[in-house]
Parts: sequence; C-alpha cells; structure tokens
Amino acid sequence: MPKPELLETFPNPNPDRHYEIRMVCPEFTSLCPIGGIEGDAADLALLQGGAPDFGTITISYIPADLCIELKSLKLYLWSFRNDGTFYERSVNRILDDLVARLSPVWLEVVGDFNVRGGIKSIVTASFGDAGS
Amino acid sequence: MPKPELLETFPNPNPDRHYEIRMVCPEFTSLCPIGGIEGDAADLALLQGGAPDFGTITISYIPADLCIELKSLKLYLWSFRNDGTFYERSVNRILDDLVARLSPVWLEVVGDFNVRGGIKSIVTASFGDAGS
Amino acid sequence: MPKPELLETFPNPNPDRHYEIRMVCPEFTSLCPIGGIEGDAADLALLQGGAPDFGTITISYIPADLCIELKSLKLYLWSFRNDGTFYERSVNRILDDLVARLSPVWLEVVGDFNVRGGIKSIVTASFGDAGS
Amino acid sequence: MPKPELLETFPNPNPDRHYEIRMVCPEFTSLCPIGGIEGDAADLALLQGGAPDFGTITISYIPADLCIELKSLKLYLWSFRNDGTFYERSVNRILDDLVARLSPVWLEVVGDFNVRGGIKSIVTASFGDAGS
Amino acid sequence: MPKPELLETFPNPNPDRHYEIRMVCPEFTSLCPIGGIEGDAADLALLQGGAPDFGTITISYIPADLCIELKSLKLYLWSFRNDGTFYERSVNRILDDLVARLSPVWLEVVGDFNVRGGIKSIVTASFGDAGS
Amino acid sequence: MPKPELLETFPNPNPDRHYEIRMVCPEFTSLCPIGGIEGDAADLALLQGGAPDFGTITISYIPADLCIELKSLKLYLWSFRNDGTFYERSVNRILDDLVARLSPVWLEVVGDFNVRGGIKSIVTASFGDAGS
Amino acid sequence: MPKPELLETFPNPNPDRHYEIRMVCPEFTSLCPIGGIEGDAADLALLQGGAPDFGTITISYIPADLCIELKSLKLYLWSFRNDGTFYERSVNRILDDLVARLSPVWLEVVGDFNVRGGIKSIVTASFGDAGS
Amino acid sequence: MPKPELLETFPNPNPDRHYEIRMVCPEFTSLCPIGGIEGDAADLALLQGGAPDFGTITISYIPADLCIELKSLKLYLWSFRNDGTFYERSVNRILDDLVARLSPVWLEVVGDFNVRGGIKSIVTASFGDAGS
Amino acid sequence: MPKPELLETFPNPNPDRHYEIRMVCPEFTSLCPIGGIEGDAADLALLQGGAPDFGTITISYIPADLCIELKSLKLYLWSFRNDGTFYERSVNRILDDLVARLSPVWLEVVGDFNVRGGIKSIVTASFGDAGS
Amino acid sequence: MPKPELLETFPNPNPDRHYEIRMVCPEFTSLCPIGGIEGDAADLALLQGGAPDFGTITISYIPADLCIELKSLKLYLWSFRNDGTFYERSVNRILDDLVARLSPVWLEVVGDFNVRGGIKSIVTASFGDAGS
Repeated sequence: MPKPELLETFPNPNPDRHYEIRMVCPEFTSLCPIGGIEGDAADLALLQGGAPDFGTITISYIPADLCIELKSLKLYLWSFRNDGTFYERSVNRILDDLVARLSPVWLEVVGDFNVRGGIKSIVTASFGDAGS
Repeated sequence: MPKPELLETFPNPNPDRHYEIRMVCPEFTSLCPIGGIEGDAADLALLQGGAPDFGTITISYIPADLCIELKSLKLYLWSFRNDGTFYERSVNRILDDLVARLSPVWLEVVGDFNVRGGIKSIVTASFGDAGS
Repeated sequence: MPKPELLETFPNPNPDRHYEIRMVCPEFTSLCPIGGIEGDAADLALLQGGAPDFGTITISYIPADLCIELKSLKLYLWSFRNDGTFYERSVNRILDDLVARLSPVWLEVVGDFNVRGGIKSIVTASFGDAGS
Repeated sequence: MPKPELLETFPNPNPDRHYEIRMVCPEFTSLCPIGGIEGDAADLALLQGGAPDFGTITISYIPADLCIELKSLKLYLWSFRNDGTFYERSVNRILDDLVARLSPVWLEVVGDFNVRGGIKSIVTASFGDAGS
Repeated sequence: MPKPELLETFPNPNPDRHYEIRMVCPEFTSLCPIGGIEGDAADLALLQGGAPDFGTITISYIPADLCIELKSLKLYLWSFRNDGTFYERSVNRILDDLVARLSPVWLEVVGDFNVRGGIKSIVTASFGDAGS
Repeated sequence: MPKPELLETFPNPNPDRHYEIRMVCPEFTSLCPIGGIEGDAADLALLQGGAPDFGTITISYIPADLCIELKSLKLYLWSFRNDGTFYERSVNRILDDLVARLSPVWLEVVGDFNVRGGIKSIVTASFGDAGS
Repeated sequence: MPKPELLETFPNPNPDRHYEIRMVCPEFTSLCPIGGIEGDAADLALLQGGAPDFGTITISYIPADLCIELKSLKLYLWSFRNDGTFYERSVNRILDDLVARLSPVWLEVVGDFNVRGGIKSIVTASFGDAGS
Repeated sequence: MPKPELLETFPNPNPDRHYEIRMVCPEFTSLCPIGGIEGDAADLALLQGGAPDFGTITISYIPADLCIELKSLKLYLWSFRNDGTFYERSVNRILDDLVARLSPVWLEVVGDFNVRGGIKSIVTASFGDAGS
Repeated sequence: MPKPELLETFPNPNPDRHYEIRMVCPEFTSLCPIGGIEGDAADLALLQGGAPDFGTITISYIPADLCIELKSLKLYLWSFRNDGTFYERSVNRILDDLVARLSPVWLEVVGDFNVRGGIKSIVTASFGDAGS
Repeated sequence: MPKPELLETFPNPNPDRHYEIRMVCPEFTSLCPIGGIEGDAADLALLQGGAPDFGTITISYIPADLCIELKSLKLYLWSFRNDGTFYERSVNRILDDLVARLSPVWLEVVGDFNVRGGIKSIVTASFGDAGS
C-alpha cells in the first residue's frame, strides 16, 4: 500500500527563482490488480498468478518553498511494490501525494510502463502551470 | 473484419483532471487489399499471394468519463489480422471506433507501417483538441 | 527524366477530417549534373565519370480530395534514377509535381542527401499551411 | 498450416565455391497454440482469445546445387500466419522443410520471438557443418 | 522464497537434434539481503529500508528430453520477488533448479543486475558442454 | 569549496549580435553531503563513507560584453571536486557565480546527475530571457 | 553491364607484411532482373516496372603485390547501376573480377541488400585464406 | 586564413518560394590560438605544440536570389585548416562571409566542437528571420 | 592513496563450480600526475592545475574460495579519488590488490579512460587462466 | 611530414606481466596526395584543391620494456596534418615508427578513414604475436 507518510522534504535553497527538478526512477514495480482486487489483497493475488508490472516513473517539478528529499522518494516508490493497482491510478496517486506534500508551483508525473499483451502504456498527469 | 464490439471501458478514476494516456501497439498486422478487394474476402487474397502489412499503432487520448480497457483494445486490434484494408482507412477506422466508444476530450491515432516497395508510410489522425 | 504522368491517385477515404500522411523513401537516387548538363544527357555523363547521388525523400501531406497511390509514387521516384539534377531542383520539382496532382491542403518535401565532398545536404520545401 | 510445397529453387550460380547466403525476415507471425490445439484449429483459437506471436526468422546457409527463391520463401513463411505452434516446433519445422528442399552444405534457422509474459525467446537450430 | 516446484516441462519436440533455446527475462527483481538476513525474513527487511534489486536473467540451453514451459518459468522467476539474496547465489540457484528439472545437455544462466553504489554486476554460471 | 575567483573572461568578439554559446562538461564530480555537513568538512566525510556524485553540467548563454574563458571554467568546475553539496544547490551556485561574472543576456545551467538509489536527477535553472 | 576493365591498381607499398584493407561501399545499386532478363536488357526492364535494388558492398583483402585504386573501384561499382542481376551473382562476380585483377592473398566480398518483400539478404563469398 | 573569395554562388532555381537548405560539414578543423596569436602565425604555433580543433559546422539558410555552390563551400571551409582562431570568432566569421555573399532571407551557423579539457562547446549565430 | 585494506570478502557460495563475476564501475576518477609527482602529493597538484582523470573500471573474475564484497570494492575504488597516478599503474595496482585478496582462479581488470588530448586510452591486464 | 623523433617513452611499470594498452585517436587528419605528390609538397596541393582526409587511428600494444608517452604520441600524430599520403602508407608508417621506438611484444595499428567518393576505408597492420 502506498505510504505517502514516507515522503520527507527540505527547504528550497533558492525560493526566489523558478527552476526545474526532474527525477527519473526506472525501477518502479507494482502488481497488476486481479479480479478487481486492489490494495493489500494483491499480495495474495501474486501467489495466485497475478502479474507484476514494471515501469519508469519520471517526476518533474518547479519547487515553491519545499523540495522532496531523494531517499524518502525512493522509499515511497518502493511502497507500491506489493500493491495491486491500475496504471492510471498509480500515476494520479503519485501526483496527488506529491502535490499535497510539496505545494509546488508545477508538478508532472509520467509513468512509462513495460509491454503487457504486446501493448506499451504511458500515462502523464500534471498540476499547476510550468509557464507561470 | 474489425470488431469494435470487442472494445470495453472502465470509469476514468480521475475525471476532474485532464491527463494523457498513450498506448503503443507494435504488433499490428492486416492484409494488403488486392484488386480492390477489402474486408472478409481478403483472407482468400492471402492464399493468392496478397501481402500482409505490419506496423505500430500508437493511440493517445485525454479521457472524459471513460478509459479503454487494455486487454479489450488488444483483442480489437487483433480483429484486423485477416482484414484487407488501406493504411489511410485503418487509421481513420480505429479513430472512429474509439471516439464512438470513449467520447474522449481528445484522441489521436498514429499508424507507422513497415516499408513496402522501398517506402515507409505514417498516417496520423485525431479528434478534439489536446489543449482544451 | 522525371515522369509526373506516372503519379496516380485515389479518392481520400476521409475528406471531412484533416489528417496527415507521411511517406519516407530511403532509396532515392539521381545523377550529379556535370558541366551544367541536366536531364537526359546525364546518362552519358555517368559514363564519363559523373557521380550518382543518393538520399532519402520524405513526403508529408494533408489530403484534400485525393491521396497519392503508393506504387505509382515509387515508379515516379524511380524516374529520377538516370536524371542529372541539383538537390534544390529535385526537391522543388517533386513538390510541384505532387501539388499539381493532388491539390492538397498542405504538402512538404524533405530531401536528405548523402555526404558529398565531406558535406551532407538537406533541402526542405512546402506548399500550403499545415495548421489550416 | 505451413506449406513447404510453396518453396521454389534455382540453380546455384557458383556451385564450385562455398559461400554463405543469409535472409532476415522480421515480419514472421503465427498463433500461440491454446489448450494443446495446434495446426488448423488454431484459427478458431484466435477468435477465442489466443494470442498471435511475432518474431524475426533468420535463415543462413551454404548452398550446394540449389538456392532458395526469395519470393517463394516469403510465401512459405506467410503460410504460418494462421497456424498455432510452439516456437521450438516452428524453428525446427522451417529447418526440416528447407533442408529437404535444398540439400544444402549447411543451414541454420534462428527464431527471435517478441516478449510474451515479460520473457523474450530465441531458438536456434542447424543442419550440416559450416566449416566443411 | 524461490519455488522450483513451479517449474513445468514439456517433451522436446526434436530430441534427435542439438539446438539452442534462449530466454531473456528483463523484469527480474529480488531484495538485497540486510545484515545477513536471507530468505523469508527479507520481506521484513524491505519495510526497514532494504533495497530491491533489479536485473535481466538470460537462460540458454540445449535440451535433452525436456523443454521448460515458458509460463511456468515466469512464475518461478516471480517467486524471487520478495526473497533476500546475493547476486551470486540467485544465479547459481536458478542454474541448480533448472538443471535438476531438465537434465539438459548444456545450460547457462547470466544475471545482469542494475547499478548499485555506482557498480553494475554480471554473474554467469553454466552446466555441461555447449560443444558436446 | 567552489572558487568563483578562478573564472576568467574575455571580451565578446561580436557584442552587436545575440548568439548562443553552450558548454557541456560531462566530468563534473562533487561529494554527497553527510549528516548535514556541507563545504570543507566533506573531505572528511568521504573518508567516513560519503558517496561521490557524478554528473554532466551544461551551461548555455547569450553573452553581453563578456565571454567565459574555457580553461578557467574547467578549473572552476574542478573546485567542486571535494565539496559536499546538494544537487539543487550546486546548479544554483554555478548559475549565480557565472551571472555575477558575465552579466549575460541569458544563461542556463542544467545538471544531469548519475543514478543514486535507483533514481536519476536533472536540475535546470536560468537567468534572463533567451528571446529578448 | 559490369566493367572490370575500369579497375586500376597500384603497387602494394608494404608487400613484406600481411595486412588488411577493408572498403565499405554503402551506395551500391543495381536492377532486379525481370522475367529472366539479365544484363543490358534490364535498362528496358526498369521502364517496364522492374525494381532497383540497393545495398552495401564490403570488400576486405590482404594484398599481395597490388592494391586496388579507390576511385577506380568506385567507377567499377557504378557500372552495376543499370545492370539486372541476382544478389548471389553480383557478389560472386565482384569477387571474381577483383581476384583476377589483384591476385590477393585473401579477399572477401559481403553484399548486404535492403529489404525486398519483407526479407533482407546478405551474401558473403571469399577467396584464399586470411590466416595464411 | 579564411578565404571568402572562394565562395561561389548559383541563381536560386525557385526564388518565388521560401524553402530551407541545410549543409552539415563534420570535418571542420582549425588551430587553437596560442598566446593570443591568431591568423597566419598559427601555423608556427602548431609546430610549438598548439592544438588542432575539430568540429562540425552546420549551415542552414532560406535563399533569396542566390544559393551557395557546394564545392566552393567545401574549399572555403578548408581555408580555416591552418588558421588559429577562437570558436566564437570562427562561427561569427562564417556567418558574416556567407551573409555578405548570399544576402539570404535567413541564415544560421552552428559550430559543434570536439571536447577540449573535458568540455564540449557549441556556438550558434544567425542572421534574419526564419519565419519571415 | 589506494587503500587495499578496505577490500572485504565473503565465502564463495558455489566453490565447486567455475563461474564468472563481472563488476563494471563507470565512476572511477583519479588525478593525473604532474611533474612526476605521484601519490599523496597529487592533492596539492590539483590545486596547482593538475587534471582529474575519469574512466570505467571493469573487473571480471572466476572465484576460488572468496568473493569480493561489493560495497568494500566501491570504497576501495573511491580511495583513488585524490591519488595522482598513470593509467598503466592504476590498472596493474587494482589487479595486484584484488589478486592478493582473493587468490582467484582468474581475474581481469580493464580501465577505459576518457579522452585526454584527443586520445582515449584502454588498459587491460589479467591474472591466471579463464579456460582452466 | 611525419616526425617520429617526437615520440617519447617511459619505462613499463609492470614489465613482468603481458598486458595490453589501447589508444584511440579520433582526430587524425592528413592530406590526400595529388598527382603523385607526397610529402612536403602536399601543403601546396591543399591550396590547389587537394582534399584533406580524416579518420580514427587505433593503436594497441603489449609493451616490453617501454611504454609510449601519451602527449608525445599526440604531437607525432599531429605531424601528419599537412602531409600528403595514401591510407595504406600512413598506417604502415605509424606501425614502423612505433615498433622502432618501443620494440613491443605486439603492436597493431588500425586506420578507419572517413567516406571518400562514397567509400569508407579501414586499414589494419600489426607486428609480433598478441598470444605470445
């Protein structure tokens, strides 16, 4: 189950300047939900033949007062490892959790997921305005 | 013969936010129409020397109320396998079928087809406005 | 000598929608003009040491009422094979011939020619307005 | 169903010299067998949700008296299109059919199949001795 | 905990011919052992900050009487997902499990693991003789 | 400790024209700060197990009256070698030092840092307006 | 029609040492023979719809007393431009012509031809022994 | 010493249409100026240990009445070979010489120079307005 | 100064089987020796303008009784960071230190160093026999 | 004119072990000889329109008592800059000069020259036995 409480921040060292931080996480993995089972019950699903999903999560943002601490982001993303969830939901969930924690000027999450059934999926969601 | 009735949907988990979903299907195949023969008769055409076509179909969209279910999209694209059709018609047909099913904010279909006669073809069609 | 009379068309299957067709032809070849000799006399020039030119021609267009038939385009491009001509002239000639035949909404020709004398050349010309 | 009777040959133009011919066919497709169903019944399987397989077949050989005619090889490989078969069987079948037709000095078939279930498969089988 | 009992086999369709099968699995993941903790206790370790490992496992073999069934191999590799283990041990364990199940002529396992601490690791182990 | 006093300049040879200079420095290295230790004490941190960071710094600018001398830039970037600092601070520091020295029309610094903990970071900051 | 009389040589500047010269010619083109028509009549074939072939010819050799003059090799390869011929025959013909002219210690010709009918062909022939 | 008098032109074959010509010259070389020595004295500098510089010059333009003749451009760029000059000056010099010769609608010069002291430099300057 | 005392080992989990472990370390850096100064005095050299060197160290070995612990290898390689040394000496030093620690069946060190003065260097040294 | 007297050496730090050093020099340039003119007169040839040649020289060797000093090698290769010479002669000349200076166990020179007249050339020569 995703654990947003793992996310830690530090004060933006240059709050007077709009600049962009991008973090690329090529080792994201979660479980494919089975029979409508999402969340904690998915660990059971894996034992029954549910498929793990793999992908790259790219997070870009313009910080306001806070920056995300890199190691805590890693731990947060690991908390999806045994969670069963749809691609669309994962990406929007990560966006919501980070926006709630950082109140950034702008933040975008891109989930680029490995081929399943011969089809590759990429989901992109954002908050705020990069040009502001 | 393309079977749009195979397309299934699920409710958009974040209908309040405009975000983009892209699906890349590198294993699309259909048959080249022969002597003006399109549709079911093309299976016969293959036996007579008609050429299979291969390509990558990329579908991008901003969902409104509905998302396309991934496995049903795969089955729908498989339904072109023994169908004889021109590139231009395939791409516009996929666009029409998906728009009818999803009523999306925006939807684009790109068909990138393998070299035939030393020439590669890419056809791009879209519905709606990505910037809306 | 280029033979525009080889170009054949078929009716645009979706004339109500603006969409783009791109054709990439990586096997274009013509002859380098020698001593100002262009056209049919260039075949003679090859025997005298004139250099063949090689390149990739990329044609992109938004059709109005007509689409270009793929096999006839191939034959048309082959008709440059023993023709002596400058890069600038080839690209503009292909543009003129296709526009005359298709009356498209928009059409662009890019000629990307192999290195000659240690220098690579790319010529781009277009007709109409892609955003119209 | 594979149709080896489609394979045609022509006399090796240089039978006195050992040389190698390699043909790379990146557009091979067949059907995944379902429930132990192989052969003609697989066309039915596709309708029931069986998955198409895609891959690249590479054939290398040293001809003895005969060479394989390129267009007939293309037609032969197309005859696997609606056939349900395992990777291991396809590759060995192609090897057997070509050896029976060509009696080559040496012949090797490599099947490099697209990812299925997150796993890519490559099967290699050969006849005779390339160093002879 | 790795579950070799998940591995299933089918009879080699061409036991009279030595040929090679290679399976590339780019989505292998396990947990890094912490404080000497290996096996089931590693799930706990993840919660305490232990790092997941990611890598590509490539299995090549010449079958004798048995081939490995692709889907069962996938399930077997998934069984390492929440197991804490060293790279060297994973690769040798997979080799041992597959050799016990298949009694192959030759079998090789290569584990190509992602960068950790700025260092990439590749471990290669094999059984039997590919040239036999 | 960064030494901006190492930065030397020379007069812009074409002050009447807005043009862009880009310098790509793929061999940037600094130390990861440990326990909040930044600056000179970081050399000690390395001995205690602190990790070096590596990355590529790309500096683009439109000069006003002054250009940066290439060798002095190299020496300046070397002065971060044994300095402990966060990515965000390094990039903003380089931007500040160069702007103070050059008073450019526009200047951008991109720091593209190697994977740490499975996550790659890219930080981008700029001064002025490239379109002015 | 290939013109071996165009091939010119110069004395090997280091006849006492075995060393290798490789020349890669990515701009080889000839015509596909039609209806068994080879040689001069192929120019007519092109007008009737015969297809040009394109490929890369790689020539490697260990010279004995003579080296091939680069410009004359270019002219010789151009002489295939309007000749109708099979891949197998082109490669063996080039090998024969060069061996007759150079009497080399060893010489190999590789013809790597563009995709035709979805199949790529590579033909390799050699003379002598590279290890002698 | 750069020799702009080598530059030759020919009349634009399509003066009524705005189109773009791009020439990429990956074999540009000059000498690094030493001790403030620029111009002819640099040949001496090379003997004293001055470093040659290498780079790729890309020239793009929209012609008005004149086009640049390709061979004369090659000779002009060769004339920098033994000239000692800064990157910034080379690029602006080439821009000035070509604009003086062609009076183009728009012209851009990009110099992409090889790594020196671990730093790569790219200089871009332009004349006129590509969108006019 | 290199610190071989940092190298730690663990018992080979499969001492009965010859298998290979390869570790690729793309973030190696040391200092270029200046004026014959090697070792500790090089830190001073950096301040005086000595150049840092960067490269990739690849270590491959067949373990006997001991394996190298990954984190300790990382720390050992970091200990070259402020050491002034020639490429040839670094590679041979790493080989000597690892052989002394591991008594392996076979061990190879490859140092692939970044371009300096327009020249890239790769040094390879090994101990024992990989085929034994 | 090549200046072998520029080549300097230093004592092999590990004369008791056979190991390999490889140096890759991607910025080699010389002049194409014109009208049989080689050597010093080629500088004149450049002014008359002779073409510069560009290529990558790769030198690999197993040292005996001496190693080549990197900076002196760079200066030696620069001394070909204004020399007119054939590819075959340059490579053999560099081999001879280095063997005379180093008396190595084994030494190989590969010259990989840029495309001229649509043909790329690679010349390889060696001295001694790498396996000794």
